[in-house]
Amino acid sequence: MEEQLIRQIVEQTVRQAGNAAKPKEAAAGDSLTLDQARKLAGLVERKADEMGFPAVIAVVDRAARPVAIHCMDDAYIASFDIALNKAYTSAGLKMSTAQLGRLSAPGQPLYGIQNTNGGRIVIFGGGETLERDGRIVGALGVSGGSLEQDTALAAYGKEVFGQMDRNW
Amino acid sequence: MEEQLIRQIVEQTVRQAGNAAKPKEAAAGDSLTLDQARKLAGLVERKADEMGFPAVIAVVDRAARPVAIHCMDDAYIASFDIALNKAYTSAGLKMSTAQLGRLSAPGQPLYGIQNTNGGRIVIFGGGETLERDGRIVGALGVSGGSLEQDTALAAYGKEVFGQMDRNW
Amino acid sequence: MEEQLIRQIVEQTVRQAGNAAKPKEAAAGDSLTLDQARKLAGLVERKADEMGFPAVIAVVDRAARPVAIHCMDDAYIASFDIALNKAYTSAGLKMSTAQLGRLSAPGQPLYGIQNTNGGRIVIFGGGETLERDGRIVGALGVSGGSLEQDTALAAYGKEVFGQMDRNW
Amino acid sequence: MEEQLIRQIVEQTVRQAGNAAKPKEAAAGDSLTLDQARKLAGLVERKADEMGFPAVIAVVDRAARPVAIHCMDDAYIASFDIALNKAYTSAGLKMSTAQLGRLSAPGQPLYGIQNTNGGRIVIFGGGETLERDGRIVGALGVSGGSLEQDTALAAYGKEVFGQMDRNW
Repeated sequence: MEEQLIRQIVEQTVRQAGNAAKPKEAAAGDSLTLDQARKLAGLVERKADEMGFPAVIAVVDRAARPVAIHCMDDAYIASFDIALNKAYTSAGLKMSTAQLGRLSAPGQPLYGIQNTNGGRIVIFGGGETLERDGRIVGALGVSGGSLEQDTALAAYGKEVFGQMDRNW
Repeated sequence: MEEQLIRQIVEQTVRQAGNAAKPKEAAAGDSLTLDQARKLAGLVERKADEMGFPAVIAVVDRAARPVAIHCMDDAYIASFDIALNKAYTSAGLKMSTAQLGRLSAPGQPLYGIQNTNGGRIVIFGGGETLERDGRIVGALGVSGGSLEQDTALAAYGKEVFGQMDRNW
Repeated sequence: MEEQLIRQIVEQTVRQAGNAAKPKEAAAGDSLTLDQARKLAGLVERKADEMGFPAVIAVVDRAARPVAIHCMDDAYIASFDIALNKAYTSAGLKMSTAQLGRLSAPGQPLYGIQNTNGGRIVIFGGGETLERDGRIVGALGVSGGSLEQDTALAAYGKEVFGQMDRNW
Repeated sequence: MEEQLIRQIVEQTVRQAGNAAKPKEAAAGDSLTLDQARKLAGLVERKADEMGFPAVIAVVDRAARPVAIHCMDDAYIASFDIALNKAYTSAGLKMSTAQLGRLSAPGQPLYGIQNTNGGRIVIFGGGETLERDGRIVGALGVSGGSLEQDTALAAYGKEVFGQMDRNW
């Protein structure tokens, strides 16, 4: 069984690597595919591992519809909603949740915005837009570490996504 | 097809112009019709275009029930709920959301009100009552720009609505 | 004031007619703009008027996000959710709600599906996909008449949308 | 960039293959790890591709908490909730949703159960428990094809999971 599974994984990798090496005609410029979301999630998970905590990673498209959600082993149960809502917030308002947090602090212009969308707006770090060629194509939400860790992890995800070739 | 469509639009305009020029018996003094809501939305959209950002415009009647909601192309997804809830808030509490924001700041009398209505109360600018002959007949909520922009856009909508003849 | 308003409407119509007569570069092939949604809603409203009942008309994009919602005067209050959920259902499952109704009848394969999405799946007529060049670009939901009326009205909306030129 | 990405994928594969080849001490006998969920999802996605339709695949642990959710490109938007709720139902009631469908038909003992859990119980095929050594360790929910396709796809997923070595 193990040989078969390894063979499957290797085949899948070759297939993925092939996809990565050649342009994918089907992918429109502003779409975010499952293949891209899964790879991004994998890289973010590896980073979370390095940082030393399990996270939930949610990737949504530019309409804030989920594409892939991964819950690392032993992540907080509540992080599922938090990560997904961070991604919803960043796609839905076209900014990071950290930036929204600054704008919605007491005395700031958007104070109270976290109450406006049925509990889906998150106003602390860990949500980032995902951009390609200067256009928002989706968003990433992560939850599981401290605020600083989540914020840094999401920023890493945004950066690594931006570095990737459009047709990866 | 285009000729047909243009003819339809012209016919519709003539019909609308006719409606605008003569009193509408059906409209009770405190009602807000779809025709009025649509025209108000159109004027607010044109203003948002001038101001340089896409907005969601929600018009509700005095029972805080939606009459027309328009999402301009590329407006924030989250703005749908926000605009509708701003209109709900203004109709529901008979004041602008900017005014409610002042009354609900920490230390002020209505602090915490944003938690009382299942996520429907908005406490920052962009919601205004719509008045006719000194009576509230509905409310307008807009979302899409900065707080200053939303507040100014809603104020514009309230003003243009107030200037309109009762039987427009 | 009336002259000014009529002038505004005429200007707006000329602008709309101009938009209708020439291709709109900004509109991607699978997008559904507010301009299109508003015009579709206007035609459906006129049809509902002819059929003799007030309706709520909801137009959503292919991600099931609202673009325009119009509540005709004196339409049922409950029709707002019903129309929007019909549009959500048709965009979300890529079929008419009438077709889903047949598939979800007792003894049929999808019996019970109306309970799976937090109350957003509608299994009776009045929701239709909106297609262009054979691709689903959004959906229409209407509510306000009898089942037969809603079903016929939505079918009318789907047909008139399909007949419209892509760049209307 | 592409070379770097391919190298990352190959490294990840080697790591995964290493994980597959040796026992994983951390995994308790009744746990379902993200690594397992992701691999299962990948195999189910490949099967859905073969069957010719895009699906949403949801894998939950034995507490019915999500572990991985993947939305294949162009899958139904409504399938996200449906797949997740199928997995919730199977983990929550320790049976396939097809079996629950038979038990909840009109006149059967569990008629009406789809109304008991706030819209989370699904009573048609596409949800299966995931078992290891005769114990339920989680559940799989799929949505995207016809009822027969979803039912067959979930059954495939259950089977392939059952064939896998405990420490894969």
